[in-house]
Amino acid sequence: MAGPVDRPPLRLALIGLGLIGGSIGLAARERLGAHVVGWDPDPEAVSGALAAGAIDEAAESIAALAALDPLDIVLVAAPVDVLLSAVSAALDACPNALVTDVGSTKGELTQAGLGPRYIGGHPLAGAEVAGIAHARADLTDGATWYLTPQPDAQGVLLERLHRFVTGIGAVPTVIDAAAHDRLMAAFSHLPHVVANVLVTHARQALGGNAWPVVGPSFRDASRVAGANPALWGGIYAANADAILTALDGAMASLAGVRALIAAGDVAALTTWQAAAAGDRSALLDLAGASGPLQELRVIVPNRPGVIAELALSLAHAGINIQDMSLRPKPDDRSGEVVLWVAREQAEQARALVDAAASAGEAESG
Amino acid sequence: MAGPVDRPPLRLALIGLGLIGGSIGLAARERLGAHVVGWDPDPEAVSGALAAGAIDEAAESIAALAALDPLDIVLVAAPVDVLLSAVSAALDACPNALVTDVGSTKGELTQAGLGPRYIGGHPLAGAEVAGIAHARADLTDGATWYLTPQPDAQGVLLERLHRFVTGIGAVPTVIDAAAHDRLMAAFSHLPHVVANVLVTHARQALGGNAWPVVGPSFRDASRVAGANPALWGGIYAANADAILTALDGAMASLAGVRALIAAGDVAALTTWQAAAAGDRSALLDLAGASGPLQELRVIVPNRPGVIAELALSLAHAGINIQDMSLRPKPDDRSGEVVLWVAREQAEQARALVDAAASAGEAESG
Repeated sequence: MAGPVDRPPLRLALIGLGLIGGSIGLAARERLGAHVVGWDPDPEAVSGALAAGAIDEAAESIAALAALDPLDIVLVAAPVDVLLSAVSAALDACPNALVTDVGSTKGELTQAGLGPRYIGGHPLAGAEVAGIAHARADLTDGATWYLTPQPDAQGVLLERLHRFVTGIGAVPTVIDAAAHDRLMAAFSHLPHVVANVLVTHARQALGGNAWPVVGPSFRDASRVAGANPALWGGIYAANADAILTALDGAMASLAGVRALIAAGDVAALTTWQAAAAGDRSALLDLAGASGPLQELRVIVPNRPGVIAELALSLAHAGINIQDMSLRPKPDDRSGEVVLWVAREQAEQARALVDAAASAGEAESG
Repeated sequence: MAGPVDRPPLRLALIGLGLIGGSIGLAARERLGAHVVGWDPDPEAVSGALAAGAIDEAAESIAALAALDPLDIVLVAAPVDVLLSAVSAALDACPNALVTDVGSTKGELTQAGLGPRYIGGHPLAGAEVAGIAHARADLTDGATWYLTPQPDAQGVLLERLHRFVTGIGAVPTVIDAAAHDRLMAAFSHLPHVVANVLVTHARQALGGNAWPVVGPSFRDASRVAGANPALWGGIYAANADAILTALDGAMASLAGVRALIAAGDVAALTTWQAAAAGDRSALLDLAGASGPLQELRVIVPNRPGVIAELALSLAHAGINIQDMSLRPKPDDRSGEVVLWVAREQAEQARALVDAAASAGEAESG
């Protein structure tokens, strides 16, 4: 695959120079030799980022990034309430750049019609601390970094973002934006809500007594209760739709098992418990393939969305693209995609890739 | 404190020779030099217990235990559906024995009016395996073993049971029977129900896709999902009242936070999250005092219930009696209780003990 020596240094702009933005700047400079420009509304964050070596130079504003073109990637690491306006401003200011973000929900921006140069992102990384002072190059090392290309995303830009994420040490994982938000609700937000409910009920059950009762299973179940209140109030609100769906499902399930317990139906409760055992086992089986990689090559027509569709069809099947490379053909009407996937999934991936390629061929032929 | 050399060997009868009964028999024989009689409706369990050295001799029936009197303790380790009849039969057959059990809920038997010679127990021990073949002397080593004396429990019998539990290596913890069941619902049964709901919802959220998403926080929150279906169907049913109360509380809490999320009320969600943080912290503070012990001595009138009241009043305050010894005075109208509690709780315990002693004095004086 093509290495950094084949290309000029990556030009990266960072909007927002807190813990996440600053850490990405450090990693991009150290590991990719990138030239990094930064902007933050807080002058102290800017001077901190310069002092820490997270950026090479400061911009005066988002609009001022226009003067620094060409930029390859503009990454917005801003609070959720200003995210949409910052991404829009970046798309306007930098006509050749891919614009991405690191927000923890992806539906709103992806549905905002921002065009094929916006591809959402969400690294599963963070810390109990905030601010540029805590930034470190290894913050996202080995972390899953979701990428949520909309169907019209430009393949070359998805490849660019994928390569960037891999290059700074994280693990890019392509996923539908809506599925991302639904899964965050199911696998993170609902468990946090439920942990809170467990500790609150447990404390009520003590009734003012001080029985020493906290065992290991309760500790596990409630470990995330009350995590970082300043952050989590906003997270619940930002993914409201998906969390409400999750809560409604959970409450319906609780009402169902409540009826079985009230009826004393041991057989049905046993069946219910066994079904949960099956669900847990199925989820653990999805923990992901690893091990040796295999290369797959496919020629696809050069039209918007082909690469995103390909990546999403693999993702639906649980196949993660460990690395990808795009090589346009001289006629510019088609291109070769080189993908690396887990060897044990290569056969399945081959079939999906061929199907996607022939579908694309039929449409463009 | 008085050691085994001061007393004749303990005479223990075991009703039910499965994993728990068998393990208790092994520990009692090995560690206390007890003489152990056993009965089980399954002849193979009886022969297995004899072969394993868990019992010295087999009884023909519960009623036949009468011929083996004096027995100090009859311990019933039987399934929940025959527990009440087995305990009643044991009380009838053995007029001098303390009768106890190891059932995981305590309300039903304690409310059954079984008299001052029944004291409920519940060791927090078990395994994924069952049957005498898996019995081992160390099964309850270090395990919390709840004791649920009713208010009229005989002090000498509570002391006998406390000493027995300590002697085989477990940690006796006196608690109200109703509180026990409520706490098991809050700290064990509800977390199990909720873990099941989490995995089931998470699998639904995948919608047939194979996204590799199971992170460490979800793994923690769902670790007990689907545990041992053959056992848990019955556990939910056995503690139905307390679990229904817990479920109703949990569903009301979920409905409350649902309203905050639907309203997008970030400030209220932040407050809610912070309250959960406070609850979690308060629970962790209850993990229990440990470290060096201090001895407390108190003279109490010799009437039913004094010792049980004393133990329960300490338990309410989160003070666990690490060891206890009862010494009747020659006049037989009063007795000295010697208690060992954590040194850091000794001052608080002293005040409670003195209050209990003077209350008892006033009543009997």
